[in-house]
Amino acid sequence: MKKNNKKLNAAIIVIGNEILSGRTQDVNVLNISNWLNKLGVKLEEVRVIPDIEKNIVNTINEVRKKFKYVFTTGGIGPTHDDITSKSISKAFNVKYCYHPEAYKILENYYDKGKFNIGRRKMAKTPKNASLIYNPSSSAPGFFIKNVYCLPGVPSILRSMLGGLNNKIIGGRKIISKTLNLRTVESEISAPLEKVQKKYKSLEIGSYPFFKQGKLGVSLVIRSDKIKLIEKCKKEIITFIKKKKIKIINYKL
Amino acid sequence: MKKNNKKLNAAIIVIGNEILSGRTQDVNVLNISNWLNKLGVKLEEVRVIPDIEKNIVNTINEVRKKFKYVFTTGGIGPTHDDITSKSISKAFNVKYCYHPEAYKILENYYDKGKFNIGRRKMAKTPKNASLIYNPSSSAPGFFIKNVYCLPGVPSILRSMLGGLNNKIIGGRKIISKTLNLRTVESEISAPLEKVQKKYKSLEIGSYPFFKQGKLGVSLVIRSDKIKLIEKCKKEIITFIKKKKIKIINYKL
Repeated sequence: MKKNNKKLNAAIIVIGNEILSGRTQDVNVLNISNWLNKLGVKLEEVRVIPDIEKNIVNTINEVRKKFKYVFTTGGIGPTHDDITSKSISKAFNVKYCYHPEAYKILENYYDKGKFNIGRRKMAKTPKNASLIYNPSSSAPGFFIKNVYCLPGVPSILRSMLGGLNNKIIGGRKIISKTLNLRTVESEISAPLEKVQKKYKSLEIGSYPFFKQGKLGVSLVIRSDKIKLIEKCKKEIITFIKKKKIKIINYKL
Repeated sequence: MKKNNKKLNAAIIVIGNEILSGRTQDVNVLNISNWLNKLGVKLEEVRVIPDIEKNIVNTINEVRKKFKYVFTTGGIGPTHDDITSKSISKAFNVKYCYHPEAYKILENYYDKGKFNIGRRKMAKTPKNASLIYNPSSSAPGFFIKNVYCLPGVPSILRSMLGGLNNKIIGGRKIISKTLNLRTVESEISAPLEKVQKKYKSLEIGSYPFFKQGKLGVSLVIRSDKIKLIEKCKKEIITFIKKKKIKIINYKL
């Protein structure tokens, strides 16, 4: 039996001026979160911080003590604004230097004479970091202790997560079941609160929506305990039926 | 002349299990950030935290001291998981109670007999908070000192930002100009770093892209000083031309 999910938590640190400036819509948080659900690791905090060494060092050193796993995205490319590897080295107080295997990977990937200074920079990691392989574009990510550094480009990041599956010791898969109702939140808030109080270990979320001209509410029950989710759902359905509210559907 | 942008900074606290669980793609950060650019306020940090009172209280109290403006999104609806107003009251150590004006607004909005317990909850704020009016669905947000609390539903949030324009003392509009090039980052990293070192007050970002089967790089120059942006752009174009790299376009 897999470990209980408690304390199997994670944080993501998005390193990127482009997210803060409103230029780029982050999508990596959603992708990493869904991947973590399957591994039974709960994402409990996200921070988006600028490409400034001091901010990266302080945030890493604060967050890595609080969470079992920390993922960073962005800042491991070849340009001047890519300072994640250097900053993480500083946070861990280790040398920032060429990683022999990363150097070889990149040297082999580029044509002779094309392994220039920018590309060589991508072979630098904190000393003794382990690599996270990159099946899309070769430049690897790395991890040191509980901090896993991934690139910012979503398609490349996604291609690298699979290689991390057996590095992350997770728990029971985290499941979300959604009950979509034709109602508004304020109609169900009182009985729903009672159910939440009874099922303290479940996370019950209520989210209004407006689709195809109609209002509705999605109730999301989240846990690693599927039987408890089903039991809780039954209680919700009992009060929903009493109130003659239409159930649109119930799904994963 | 408007104030210099220095210290006219902001942070966003996204309060929402639905973002951390990977259920919902956040888009509010992008919208608030672009609105802040126009007001001349720089978004410098984002945190996504769960719907847990202790986390909200601690995060608010840490962040509100560091930034001139703090915006929260989410958690001001009628259900049990909407605990932003209560938590902010606790953070500021003030009473959590009915806001007389909010109560009237909501009482007038709903038909007689329909102003139930869930809806009345949306009239509660920290004592003496000021309201942020909601032209979409009436339930107001609020602000207390430098903390501005907005809803999580993106369309409603957007409709409420306009009403805040004259509450935020901003600076010169922050401009981003983008130079799109047909190259890869490692070809330009060395000369680009030199330009960044010369123009320390400008934020120069380099972002690879892959569109319609072709690789390219977007260079983004960001500042509230348009003349300096143009001067810097000229220097970049000088080395770009020397390297015979194709310029795709240059735009806002």
